[in-house]
Amino acid sequence: MRLVIIGTGNIGRAAVEAAKKASDIELVGVYHHNDDLSEVDADVALLCLPTREIPTFAQKMLKMGISTVDSFDIHGQIYDLREDLMWIAKQHKAVSILSAGWDPGSDSMVRALFSALVPNGDTYTNFGPGRSMGHTVAAKAIPGVKDALSMTLPAGKGKHDRHVYIELEDGYTFQEVKAAILRDDYFAHDKTEIEQVESVAAINTTAHGVHIERNGLSGVTPNQQLDFTMRIDNPALTAQFMVCCARAAYRMMGREQYGAFTTIELAPIDLLEGNDEELIRAFI
Amino acid sequence: MRLVIIGTGNIGRAAVEAAKKASDIELVGVYHHNDDLSEVDADVALLCLPTREIPTFAQKMLKMGISTVDSFDIHGQIYDLREDLMWIAKQHKAVSILSAGWDPGSDSMVRALFSALVPNGDTYTNFGPGRSMGHTVAAKAIPGVKDALSMTLPAGKGKHDRHVYIELEDGYTFQEVKAAILRDDYFAHDKTEIEQVESVAAINTTAHGVHIERNGLSGVTPNQQLDFTMRIDNPALTAQFMVCCARAAYRMMGREQYGAFTTIELAPIDLLEGNDEELIRAFI
Repeated sequence: MRLVIIGTGNIGRAAVEAAKKASDIELVGVYHHNDDLSEVDADVALLCLPTREIPTFAQKMLKMGISTVDSFDIHGQIYDLREDLMWIAKQHKAVSILSAGWDPGSDSMVRALFSALVPNGDTYTNFGPGRSMGHTVAAKAIPGVKDALSMTLPAGKGKHDRHVYIELEDGYTFQEVKAAILRDDYFAHDKTEIEQVESVAAINTTAHGVHIERNGLSGVTPNQQLDFTMRIDNPALTAQFMVCCARAAYRMMGREQYGAFTTIELAPIDLLEGNDEELIRAFI
Repeated sequence: MRLVIIGTGNIGRAAVEAAKKASDIELVGVYHHNDDLSEVDADVALLCLPTREIPTFAQKMLKMGISTVDSFDIHGQIYDLREDLMWIAKQHKAVSILSAGWDPGSDSMVRALFSALVPNGDTYTNFGPGRSMGHTVAAKAIPGVKDALSMTLPAGKGKHDRHVYIELEDGYTFQEVKAAILRDDYFAHDKTEIEQVESVAAINTTAHGVHIERNGLSGVTPNQQLDFTMRIDNPALTAQFMVCCARAAYRMMGREQYGAFTTIELAPIDLLEGNDEELIRAFI
């Protein structure tokens, strides 16, 4: 499988490492975000780009007959994006795998499996402790914030607290900036602590985690308890899973299963290096 | 989907309950193990039968054009059984889903997903505490054992201890029966405690559990930690997952994906009640 990686941020760089470790993948190109992509020649392109740019880049690649994998992460818009990309992928005999990070992504597969095992029950997805991309960006946009880090802290049962570290710009007081952050819609609904620090860079982290718990009934039998916990380096995990999904896209192309798919539509075997017999003997 | 259940033991009875709770499944028949099955008319048959009888019953149903789901649990023979059933299923336009319990079964999907997220690492599957079917049967076969219960106790890192409760038959001493159990190949390799009880029935349990842990590298980044824990009623969980796999078999028939498949070859979405849009919006 001939792979290109588009994007050279945290995830793009980690994807280069993950692709190099896979003996069934040939990394044939790494492109910056603004490069001319009209000459790209590959089976699959990993789109390691900001979420809002994914639809445009995915369409462009699919129209060139190149399958795509992205980690588009706006949960409420994923189904519509899948619909948009579906016919383009089919028309150009390609496969697009959407939202292939960890949440949405691998966590989605866990939640679907949990609901199959325990159809009647409650699932709680608890994130962190770890850095929230969205909240960090929101905090940085507040006037007077020179740099920020917003940590997501699990508060139980799918609820989260926020701990925001900020560096102040000259001419602002901590109290006025703190009040502005707490008024922001990103922070207004959760318990939020704000702390001033000398250097955000010095405490920044790519560690993250999630705890998914489900309790309910299998058939008529209650108290079936399922629990998934992950403690990870975030870009490394995201990039690794995207590379595995590139493998799945390539296999689906080989079976002429063209179209756009989310991770819960993938068979786990397609994510893994090896042939059917080796994988079934190893994992079943 | 028109479902029949073959077998009326713990799992067959729990499967009846699980099937009744699914609004997309019509339970059209429940058969005892020795019934005449030549008139069975259904889309899918759940084979809730002893493992060694699965190959014969699966072939019989598939040749009638009825898809099958089983929980065949001899790990080392699953790939060969899949090969045997593959062409029969294809020839008769049916789907056979093998080894659809929890281990092999749903645990296999978890292990495959864990290896995709962390390709270079170690997975440990720790069972219990819970009743081991195989070890219980082995203990019951020892002369002088009137009834037995062999509990599997996790000893860490995929190793297990055994705690065997026995009722003695008249004319045998505890010491001689204990020695015979400890010589048996099922028990000779694990740390095993034997305890005499008045009544095995009084302490018997269907509770079980598993803890799957993996630690390793995503790309070149170490210390990626994944952890799955399940505490369940065993027959209820097994039966529920088999019913979900019957749904997957039916959907695959609809897409003309005929053949024999293990659980790591299934997409999680096919296990769940609902249409693509509902399920993607709910789980992604």
